[in-house]
Amino acid sequence: MPQDDQLPPTDSEFDRATAVRRAEGGGFTADLQPGWDVGSGILNGGYLLAVTAQAALADSPHPHPVAVSASYLRATPPGPATLAVTPGPVGRTLAHTAVVLSGAAGPTLSVQVTTATLGDDAPLRAVPAPDAPPVEECLEAVPGAEMGGHPVPAVGLRHRVETRLDPATAGWATGNPSGEPVMRAWLRLADGREPDPLALLLFADVLPPTSWSMGLMGWAPTVQLQVLVRARPAPGWCLAEARANEVAGGWLDEEYRIWDSTGRLVAQSRQLARAPR
Amino acid sequence: MPQDDQLPPTDSEFDRATAVRRAEGGGFTADLQPGWDVGSGILNGGYLLAVTAQAALADSPHPHPVAVSASYLRATPPGPATLAVTPGPVGRTLAHTAVVLSGAAGPTLSVQVTTATLGDDAPLRAVPAPDAPPVEECLEAVPGAEMGGHPVPAVGLRHRVETRLDPATAGWATGNPSGEPVMRAWLRLADGREPDPLALLLFADVLPPTSWSMGLMGWAPTVQLQVLVRARPAPGWCLAEARANEVAGGWLDEEYRIWDSTGRLVAQSRQLARAPR
Repeated sequence: MPQDDQLPPTDSEFDRATAVRRAEGGGFTADLQPGWDVGSGILNGGYLLAVTAQAALADSPHPHPVAVSASYLRATPPGPATLAVTPGPVGRTLAHTAVVLSGAAGPTLSVQVTTATLGDDAPLRAVPAPDAPPVEECLEAVPGAEMGGHPVPAVGLRHRVETRLDPATAGWATGNPSGEPVMRAWLRLADGREPDPLALLLFADVLPPTSWSMGLMGWAPTVQLQVLVRARPAPGWCLAEARANEVAGGWLDEEYRIWDSTGRLVAQSRQLARAPR
Repeated sequence: MPQDDQLPPTDSEFDRATAVRRAEGGGFTADLQPGWDVGSGILNGGYLLAVTAQAALADSPHPHPVAVSASYLRATPPGPATLAVTPGPVGRTLAHTAVVLSGAAGPTLSVQVTTATLGDDAPLRAVPAPDAPPVEECLEAVPGAEMGGHPVPAVGLRHRVETRLDPATAGWATGNPSGEPVMRAWLRLADGREPDPLALLLFADVLPPTSWSMGLMGWAPTVQLQVLVRARPAPGWCLAEARANEVAGGWLDEEYRIWDSTGRLVAQSRQLARAPR
């Protein structure tokens, strides 16, 4: 998906916010948008992954990011950023690219992107979607609004991604955490754009830390995150299930599985994060 | 764990095979050992991760690799290799390092290593070990020997890592694949060295592809692999469970969970691999 000097016109806020532009002398620039934050002006890790994937796709013969591994070196602030791209081997089925995102203070995110062409083959073996109530029976997380009598944190990301929480996993929002570090939610872009592999990178780190369901209400900064995109999602809502397995020694893992509106598994992610105190 | 020009004397074949040496002008060299292969002279991905982690640890104030993400750019042959190291931020709790391993033909493996200091805290939430028969009731996979009347593939790695397969997940070895892409095995280094976080990197990709249990007996080359080390393992055998979840469109994911001899979860890994045809 080559990009010209001019960004393509688009009605999608997500497309505009993740666009990259070729820089003189090589690499790309991006203008990271403040609205994609998780509070305190800190940009969401999935949003940043989508930006770096755009840079990797620009010179790849393959249109889809299928595996993305990122080290979060420092918090990335909104504003101008540069993306240094190191191309790796390019093959018939896949290509490798390394991307380093830097802000004014230096590198903040180091990402390895594998691009490929996802087909339409039916799975030989599939992961079925979990049971979840229909969208209209789930809880809408709107920043500043109330949910179960408690204010929803003022997180810009929630304005960009419509998030409907399965009530069974949303007890933390009403002061009754379930004790199980699991969250399920229906997701779609608020700008009306249908999901695609880039949007799945965003969705793969879009929920609050599942440790909130253990009553650990602090932030859980991502250290490393790997996202696998397994299929192109069908239009409509995606269902995400996030789960922490082991919480120990100040660390937690967090896994996401994401299904499209047809119930097909379309993405998996796993991150190591610092556990809230 | 700084390394001097002289490699430390050791009785461990694993330590010798993963040792790195400072190169003039920066970076490191390694002499990749042919015995750590998975057949056809191709070196095991976990072995290579351990070598790259050694390079990352050399200048880190932290002694343990806790998160390692690798893109397998090309097959890595045995023999002399160089390791280019790009240090990232170093903090009180963790440090980031990028390592690129190159053979005579160029870069073959690009790795992001997060190092930290693992403590002895009891888990707040733990993943219990699965049921598995005791070691002595499991099947020994010795290359060239027979297992259930069938020859075990001549894979050097099996001489380096003692592998005792849970018979319930070893039907593929006797021509009766279970259909479920799951394998469980007890693991230890054949040289008698006790497990540590470096050995866990090796163990995190040490079993045959779980797609063999689906009757897909070809190789499943790793594209990207992430390993999380969650605790320092106790001495003795480790139990690994590997599982493919989604097999579709020529791709499969493969997840490992590894417990130490006390039943504590010590490592998790996930890879995207090309599915055998």
